[in-house]
Amino acid sequence: MDNAKLQKFNTLKQEIISEIKPTEYEQIKLEEVTRKLINHIYNVIKKRDLKDISVQLVGSAARNTWLSGTHDLDIFIVFPENTSREELEAIGLEIARDVTKIADKYEERFAEHPYINLQVENFGVDLVPCFGVSDSSKIKSSVDRTPFHNEYVKSNIAGLFDDVRLLKQFMRGIGVYGSELKTKGFSGYLTELLVIYYGSFENVLYNAANWKPGIKLRLGNEEISTILIQEKKPLLFVDPIDPERNVASAVSLDKLCEFIDAARDFLESPSKQFFFSKKGNEHNKEYLIDRMERRSTGFIVIIFDRPDEVDDVVYPQLYKMERSVTEMLEMFDFKVMKSFSWSEDVGLGNKSVVFFELITSRLPNVKKHFGPPVWLRDHAQKFKEKYSDDKNSFNFYIEDGKYVCDVLRQHVNAKSLLEDRLKTCSLGKHINESINQNFDLLENDEVLKIKNPEFRLLLSKSL
Amino acid sequence: MDNAKLQKFNTLKQEIISEIKPTEYEQIKLEEVTRKLINHIYNVIKKRDLKDISVQLVGSAARNTWLSGTHDLDIFIVFPENTSREELEAIGLEIARDVTKIADKYEERFAEHPYINLQVENFGVDLVPCFGVSDSSKIKSSVDRTPFHNEYVKSNIAGLFDDVRLLKQFMRGIGVYGSELKTKGFSGYLTELLVIYYGSFENVLYNAANWKPGIKLRLGNEEISTILIQEKKPLLFVDPIDPERNVASAVSLDKLCEFIDAARDFLESPSKQFFFSKKGNEHNKEYLIDRMERRSTGFIVIIFDRPDEVDDVVYPQLYKMERSVTEMLEMFDFKVMKSFSWSEDVGLGNKSVVFFELITSRLPNVKKHFGPPVWLRDHAQKFKEKYSDDKNSFNFYIEDGKYVCDVLRQHVNAKSLLEDRLKTCSLGKHINESINQNFDLLENDEVLKIKNPEFRLLLSKSL
Repeated sequence: MDNAKLQKFNTLKQEIISEIKPTEYEQIKLEEVTRKLINHIYNVIKKRDLKDISVQLVGSAARNTWLSGTHDLDIFIVFPENTSREELEAIGLEIARDVTKIADKYEERFAEHPYINLQVENFGVDLVPCFGVSDSSKIKSSVDRTPFHNEYVKSNIAGLFDDVRLLKQFMRGIGVYGSELKTKGFSGYLTELLVIYYGSFENVLYNAANWKPGIKLRLGNEEISTILIQEKKPLLFVDPIDPERNVASAVSLDKLCEFIDAARDFLESPSKQFFFSKKGNEHNKEYLIDRMERRSTGFIVIIFDRPDEVDDVVYPQLYKMERSVTEMLEMFDFKVMKSFSWSEDVGLGNKSVVFFELITSRLPNVKKHFGPPVWLRDHAQKFKEKYSDDKNSFNFYIEDGKYVCDVLRQHVNAKSLLEDRLKTCSLGKHINESINQNFDLLENDEVLKIKNPEFRLLLSKSL
Repeated sequence: MDNAKLQKFNTLKQEIISEIKPTEYEQIKLEEVTRKLINHIYNVIKKRDLKDISVQLVGSAARNTWLSGTHDLDIFIVFPENTSREELEAIGLEIARDVTKIADKYEERFAEHPYINLQVENFGVDLVPCFGVSDSSKIKSSVDRTPFHNEYVKSNIAGLFDDVRLLKQFMRGIGVYGSELKTKGFSGYLTELLVIYYGSFENVLYNAANWKPGIKLRLGNEEISTILIQEKKPLLFVDPIDPERNVASAVSLDKLCEFIDAARDFLESPSKQFFFSKKGNEHNKEYLIDRMERRSTGFIVIIFDRPDEVDDVVYPQLYKMERSVTEMLEMFDFKVMKSFSWSEDVGLGNKSVVFFELITSRLPNVKKHFGPPVWLRDHAQKFKEKYSDDKNSFNFYIEDGKYVCDVLRQHVNAKSLLEDRLKTCSLGKHINESINQNFDLLENDEVLKIKNPEFRLLLSKSL
C-alpha cells in the first residue's frame, strides 16, 4: 500500500472501531452486572457451605474482545476435578436456580450438561457448571476447555483487542461469523487465534487472500496430529490448548471461500460496507417480484411448523431436507438451480422454510424410459411385455440398440410431486414429525407471503 | 411349434407368397424385356465389331428372387479383364447410349463408373459396364463382384426362392430392407445369403431372435480376417466370394435390433402385418396435433431445398446435420428427445427436413455459469472481473468453493438459437450450400404444413 492508501485505510479502521468498541458506559454496565452475578453466586456458595467452588467470567466479555451492542456473559461455575458428574449437575443447577432470583427471565437449557440462560438487565447470561481440571489434557467435558481458552487468549491478546473486534465485525458484515450449525462459519475464539497468529487485523486478511482449502495453522511447533489431518476440513487451526482439536472444524468450504473472497475485495478497495452489510431492496415486494420474473425460473417453497428445538438441532435437519428434496426433484427431472433453508426463531407457531429455484417447474407429459438392450432376450422380453401395451406408454421403439418407451410422467409439475412424495424423502426426526403434521407449498410469487426480513434477505441474495 | 400353430404358420406363408411371388405374366414380361435388351446390346456389339464382350442379367431378376411389383433389371456389360478403364467407360457408355433408342426415358448416373439407367416398358434398367475377371480376388472395380455374387447365389439358392422372397418382404414390412445410406438395413444379396446359411425363412428368424451385436457368420470354414473383426460392425457376414468383405457392413445397430425384435414378435404371433405395414392415422392432421399436444414437448423442424444429389449423397449429410444440430441444441441446454431426417425425392424445389422433439423449447432467462475455485487467485480474479459487473450478470456467488455467476442466456428459445447459429453447425458440403441459400423453421403444429405422407409416417412413428 502506498502512503495515501494506508492513511485512508487507517482512518477507515478508526471509524469502524469507534462504532464497534463498547462505550465506557457499556463497559461499566457490563462490569457491574458481572460483579453482581458473581457476588450473588459466591453468596449462594457460602450460604450452602459448598467447598472449593470458584466462579469465573469467560468469553469475549472477559477477554475485552466483545463488540458494542452485544450483551452476552458466560459465567462458569468451576467444580473440583473429583466432583461426580451427578453432583456437578445437581449443585450447578441448584446454584444457578438461586441466581434466577435476580434475573428478569430464565430458561434451563441443555448442552453436554444442563445449564441456565438468564436475562439480567438486558444481558444474556449463560451460567455453566464445569470441572476445574488441573491440565487441559484432563478435561472431562467439552466446556471444561473454556477456562483454558480464556487463559490462553488473555495472556496473548494484549494490544490486539481492537484488531479482534475489527475481524469479528468484518466477518459479521460478510456473513461468515458464527460457528453454529446454522452458519458454519468462524467462532469468536477462532477469530482471536487468527489475530494472535497473524499479528493484526490486516495481516489476517492479507494472508487469507491467499489461503487454499486444506490450509493448516498452528501456534506452537508441534507436529499436527494424524487425526486432524485425516479429517480433511477446509480450514485447520490446531487448538493451542488441545493438539487433537481443530478450532475451525465448523468452517464450511463456502464460508471459507467467502472469507477469502471478501478479504481480497476489501484489500483491493477498503470500505465500510464490508463491516455493515448495506440494506437493500430485499424487503420490497415489487422489487423481488420483478427479479423473480426477470429470471423466469420456477420458485417453490416448503413451509411448515418449526420443530420446538434450538437452531443447532433444527438447521442440520433443514440442510438435510434441502439435500434429500433436491435429490428427489432431480430424480423426477426437475433441475434445482438454487436452494436455501431458513427458520424463524424457536417458538410455537413459528415456521421453517426450504426454498428451491428450478430451471422449470413444469415438464412435458412424456419422458423417455430406457430399457435393456434388445439382445438381452429375457430382460428385453420382460421390459417389452411390461411397457409395450401399457396405457401409460406413448410409444415403443429402439434407440442405440436399447428398447425405449415414451411413458407418461407421473409428475409434470414440481408442486404435485412434492405434495405426493415429500413425506418419502429422508428427513430428520423432528422435521419428519412436523411435515407429517402438515406442510404448505408456495409457488412463484406466493413465496412473498413470507414477510420475515431475514427470509427476504436470503431470497433477495439468491435472485 | 405345435401342429396347429405350424399349420397356421404355413397357411400364412402361402398367403404371403401368393401376394409377393411374381405372376406368370410378370415373369414372361420380365423375360421378354430382358431378352429384347440383351439382343439389342449384342446387336450393337456385333455392329461395332467389338470383341470378347458379353452381356449378363444379374441381380434378383436373374436369381428368381425378385418380388411381384418390382421391375428392376440389372444388365451388366462384361469387358475383357485387360481392357483399360478409359476404354471400358467409353465403350460401355457408347453401347448403353445406343440402347437408349429403345428406352422410354434414360439418365446417365455415376457410381464407380458411369452407367445408364433406362425406363423400358415399366422396367427400371441399370446398364452397367464391368470387367470380366477370371477370379473374384482379381476384381478391378466393386461392380466386378456382382457377376460372382450372381453365380454364387444361383448355384446355392435352388428350392429357396420363396424363402428369400418371404424374408425380403418381411424386412420391407418392418422397415429394415435396403442397404442404402438412407436405410442402413439389409441388402438383397445379404437376404439371400441368410436364407442359404440358415436354410429357410423361418430358420433365419429363429436364429435372428437370439442374435447379439457382434455376431459373425460365414458360409465357408475359413478364418475370419482380422480386418473384418476390427471393423466391429453390429453384423458380420463374410462375403463367400471375397473373404475381406462384410456383406452386412451397412447394417446399423438399430436396424439389426429392429430385425431381432420383429423376428421374436413374429415367431410369437405370426401375422400378415409384419409383411405389409398397416396404414394408420399418420396422414390425419387432427390425429397428429392431438398426439403432439398430449406429449406437450416442443417440436421444431428445419426445412430447406434438397441439394440436387442422390439419396446416398443427401442422407449421410442429413444424418450428420441431425447430429451436429443436436449437439448445438444441447450445448445451449435444449435437450433433444428425438430427431429424424427426411427428404423428398431428388428434384428441383423439393425439400429436405430435419426434425427435433425437445423436452422444452423455452428455457428460463438465467443460467448458472461456473467459474474457477476461489483459491486459484489469478483465474478467480479474472473471472470475477469479467462477470461481477457485467450487465448480463444476474447474481454472483460462491458454491462448492467455486465462483458462480447467474448470467442471462443468449437464447431462451430453440427457434431463435437455430435462426442465429444453424449456419455455424458442422454441415456437409451440399447441405451447407443449401442452408446458406435459405432455410425455414417450423414450430409445433406448423410442422404439419409438411403434407408428404412419408414425412407424416415418420412423424407419426415418433409420437
